[in-house]
Amino acid sequence: MKPFQLLVTGAAALLLALGSAAAAEKPPAEKLKGHQTTPSGKYQPSLDVLKDEDVQRLTSPGAPEITQAEFNQARAIYFERCAGCHGVLRKGATGKPLTTKITQELGYDYLKDFITYGSPAGMPNWGVPGGLNESQIDVMTRYLLNEPPQPPEFGLKEIKASWKVLVPVEQRPTQQENDLDLDNIFAVTLRDTGEVALIDGASKKIVLIIKTGYAVHISRYSASGRYLFTIGRDAKIVIIDLWMKVPGTVAEIKVGMEARSVETSKMKGWEDKYAIAGAYWPPQYVIMDGATLEPLKVVSTRGMTVDTQEYHPEPRVAAIVASHFHPEFVVNVKETGRILMVNYEDIENLKVTSIAAERFLHDGGFDSTGRYFLVAANARDKVVVVDTKTNKRVAIIETGPKPHPGRGANFVHPKYGPVWVTSHLGDETVALIGTDPEGHAQHAWKVVQSLEGQGGGALFVKTHPKSTNLWVDTPLNPEAAIASSVAVFDINNLEAGYEVVPIGEMSGISEGVKRVVQGEYNKAGDEIWFSVWNAKKQQSAIVVIDDKTRKLKAVIKDKRLVTPTGKFNLYNTAKDVY
Amino acid sequence: MKPFQLLVTGAAALLLALGSAAAAEKPPAEKLKGHQTTPSGKYQPSLDVLKDEDVQRLTSPGAPEITQAEFNQARAIYFERCAGCHGVLRKGATGKPLTTKITQELGYDYLKDFITYGSPAGMPNWGVPGGLNESQIDVMTRYLLNEPPQPPEFGLKEIKASWKVLVPVEQRPTQQENDLDLDNIFAVTLRDTGEVALIDGASKKIVLIIKTGYAVHISRYSASGRYLFTIGRDAKIVIIDLWMKVPGTVAEIKVGMEARSVETSKMKGWEDKYAIAGAYWPPQYVIMDGATLEPLKVVSTRGMTVDTQEYHPEPRVAAIVASHFHPEFVVNVKETGRILMVNYEDIENLKVTSIAAERFLHDGGFDSTGRYFLVAANARDKVVVVDTKTNKRVAIIETGPKPHPGRGANFVHPKYGPVWVTSHLGDETVALIGTDPEGHAQHAWKVVQSLEGQGGGALFVKTHPKSTNLWVDTPLNPEAAIASSVAVFDINNLEAGYEVVPIGEMSGISEGVKRVVQGEYNKAGDEIWFSVWNAKKQQSAIVVIDDKTRKLKAVIKDKRLVTPTGKFNLYNTAKDVY
Repeated sequence: MKPFQLLVTGAAALLLALGSAAAAEKPPAEKLKGHQTTPSGKYQPSLDVLKDEDVQRLTSPGAPEITQAEFNQARAIYFERCAGCHGVLRKGATGKPLTTKITQELGYDYLKDFITYGSPAGMPNWGVPGGLNESQIDVMTRYLLNEPPQPPEFGLKEIKASWKVLVPVEQRPTQQENDLDLDNIFAVTLRDTGEVALIDGASKKIVLIIKTGYAVHISRYSASGRYLFTIGRDAKIVIIDLWMKVPGTVAEIKVGMEARSVETSKMKGWEDKYAIAGAYWPPQYVIMDGATLEPLKVVSTRGMTVDTQEYHPEPRVAAIVASHFHPEFVVNVKETGRILMVNYEDIENLKVTSIAAERFLHDGGFDSTGRYFLVAANARDKVVVVDTKTNKRVAIIETGPKPHPGRGANFVHPKYGPVWVTSHLGDETVALIGTDPEGHAQHAWKVVQSLEGQGGGALFVKTHPKSTNLWVDTPLNPEAAIASSVAVFDINNLEAGYEVVPIGEMSGISEGVKRVVQGEYNKAGDEIWFSVWNAKKQQSAIVVIDDKTRKLKAVIKDKRLVTPTGKFNLYNTAKDVY
Repeated sequence: MKPFQLLVTGAAALLLALGSAAAAEKPPAEKLKGHQTTPSGKYQPSLDVLKDEDVQRLTSPGAPEITQAEFNQARAIYFERCAGCHGVLRKGATGKPLTTKITQELGYDYLKDFITYGSPAGMPNWGVPGGLNESQIDVMTRYLLNEPPQPPEFGLKEIKASWKVLVPVEQRPTQQENDLDLDNIFAVTLRDTGEVALIDGASKKIVLIIKTGYAVHISRYSASGRYLFTIGRDAKIVIIDLWMKVPGTVAEIKVGMEARSVETSKMKGWEDKYAIAGAYWPPQYVIMDGATLEPLKVVSTRGMTVDTQEYHPEPRVAAIVASHFHPEFVVNVKETGRILMVNYEDIENLKVTSIAAERFLHDGGFDSTGRYFLVAANARDKVVVVDTKTNKRVAIIETGPKPHPGRGANFVHPKYGPVWVTSHLGDETVALIGTDPEGHAQHAWKVVQSLEGQGGGALFVKTHPKSTNLWVDTPLNPEAAIASSVAVFDINNLEAGYEVVPIGEMSGISEGVKRVVQGEYNKAGDEIWFSVWNAKKQQSAIVVIDDKTRKLKAVIKDKRLVTPTGKFNLYNTAKDVY
């Protein structure tokens, strides 16, 4: 077991790799070593996202000159490279605020050096080859000394203008018209092509490639399992009807300019009725019709932080899940640290319970009963627990540096009873939290055990009710051997430590770092799929492991399988099995 | 009965007089005649409200030069004269938006003329003597061509810094230690001195003058009647303990920079526990401890408008009332048109039901049962009804041009059963709305009768359960005779029309317009008090009328009674009797 130094020497790389918290799907940095880190990936300003004519250029007295062309260039670079940490409005988020009050005090020379050389606290050194050239750094420095532009809003009018119903509901089938085993379908994000691949769980063949938004962050299925929802980083939602003879896109919409989360109503009696999506910019969530994506309600999340109760102009919407106890969505707001229980029973008279949680909420999942929702406040090294039955906060638990659970993993611990698990970005520990306040009150909402994994840079843990394995990936670890393998624990003998399964090597791919990311079980729970995620021009694969023997069962290779990351098995995702 | 031409010829004056909707308490314009209108009152920039060092000066390319000194001057003028209609952020409210995109298209000359000469649509002609001089108009024109400064936020830290407990709870009496007949005390706003006068209802003597915020908009009593809350336009709240030997201020706080509303918890079991205040800037409400004003929860109202669902950066908080059916405050948000049912049962996990109402909510009151809340959406000529038991919207009713009900008036109509009444700023009509969906379903939530009053410019209607009179004031009417008198109807013989009671004349004051504003009953309901409101340097008075005979009972004159406007009888206010 290797101590993980990333937080000290490689925070810049880590923050870079995480980007605007799209942790699982950002391209890996070329090197993950402190000041030597450089960003990877071809630079593509999202000019379709922020149109020049919509943006008003501002200056303040004493700020250096910047031409309109330079301003446009800087704005695009800022949105792609800087906004994730410093916020679209430059008010700060994971990174420091960059208001002109601050930048003008620091001055041109200081800023330019800072951008060029970075800092040990996490700022990448953009001056290295592959980063920004000298002229770009000069423009960025002057840009930061001028006022940030207010990015355009994206209200109901703009959302509606983007809405397309490709197949009206009345033209859709009334029952499944294909012979796919839908319950065992995997939706696989092909990050860099803006696509999702549907893969049959039994044959391991690609059934269909669907054009989606850019870098799909989440795929979710409607409660019935009929509809597949995908949301891209560009806030484009695509809904696929899996019942059609040839499953295909039936509606699409854009809910903002940047987004991460989508979910559908799952409460008994409300199945498939509504969808909800959370946006990063503008900071808002949108409730839509579950079959057509017709936008019904747009709600801003701008408001006060949970601790200091000061106004935050950019509280981004992180994970959203559907409650099983009330007709509610659980909406996690990052910068203000609030968990919103959004009741969809009567959206004209919308009832929202705002639970005071902790700042920087990111991802999370339910305990095994589906009653308690556990969510990481990653920059605060904590996990917050809320009771979705009483709509109250139950606990805030310190777990370790930068927890990143994905949805987490649930199993019954031989000693502590039911536990929920998260790994960490910031170190090698894997925290087990007791989740049974009735049967095991003394262990509830405490870290009952902390396992030592391979290293930091972990994104996802995984097990299954029918499995005795606990899998921990480490795709963002700076050491290639760790990044391309996973650790697996026997949940009945955790003290024995973990076995390393070299998934990357098993894929037979010779090129690239072969980062191994996100284990996902099939419906039966007897095999687990991992993505072997290489750069866009390199070969990638999905490796299927037999859960009982931990041996290779299959390697899925296909030239269409470009940059695979998240995988979502229909049954396990729709039924919250994890 | 004279037809009311104000909307055509005097809209500028009216808007001016109304200012930022502080209708009842703005000093009257010198003349109320269209383009000849000039603002009155000495110009006092609120520099304590917006500190220069907190405000960042912005320019945009192509904007004319403006020095820091000019900018500061313009900012102060804008806040005092323009923000009420055009919004602090210049995004528009009752008035048009004034973003640089718009102003730069109009250009310097056009803007300058517009400011100087006004418009028939409601813009005052500031170029007249007593308005702005040529140099000020030039500065304002250049100011509008530059970016508006972002006014500072006012979060928990700033609110807490303003909080003072002058008499700790443990040093306060446990029972009333004076022999005042508290139930019949009147709190009278002395608008231009920043004071409230406490007047004994029986002796008509001033008991106490209390230093408060500027131009107190609302005085409210706690459910027990022990505490008096006042809120100034400057968002300063002062709480007076009426049980002390000599009643006095026991705590104070500022909840923002501009505010209009304060209320206390009235639900059974929650009496006196919480207070809430709504601010205009920043757009937010604050929940406080009911005895100490300790700020507990700050909630931003920034969000989407109810109709187009577009983001509004400045949704001001208008009237707030306390529900009698749930532990909730009814918070009316003006620009977004939402009625927020803010549940104070568990403020850590705050539950808010956002009822879709209508834009430009302003003032309102309960029906006689206390279940239904009726609120004017004044710029939409409508009244919205919500059921505070079910938290649903019941109706939106078109009533007439610019309804201004105050809290409204309730009585049992001989033909239509229980009705609630509003007068209008925009014409002479007085609308009677049926409020009994059980006993008189066919009349419920309809304008069952429209009376013709003296004229437009009406602010308050009033009756009492023990009275058969319905009083209608018209203080903003351009005709002095109408402004200084009130109309009174016999509720059992409404068809007979109204009697004019010349309150201004009855006061015996010879100078000034003698605007007569806001009738308020004593506890017994056998006399009604009217303010005779003159300018600061002129004599004012309160005239007390015997309700049965409609004859003069008393005139309260005192040199301390400067610019009296709103009067709040303790029993009637605390118990929602109106």
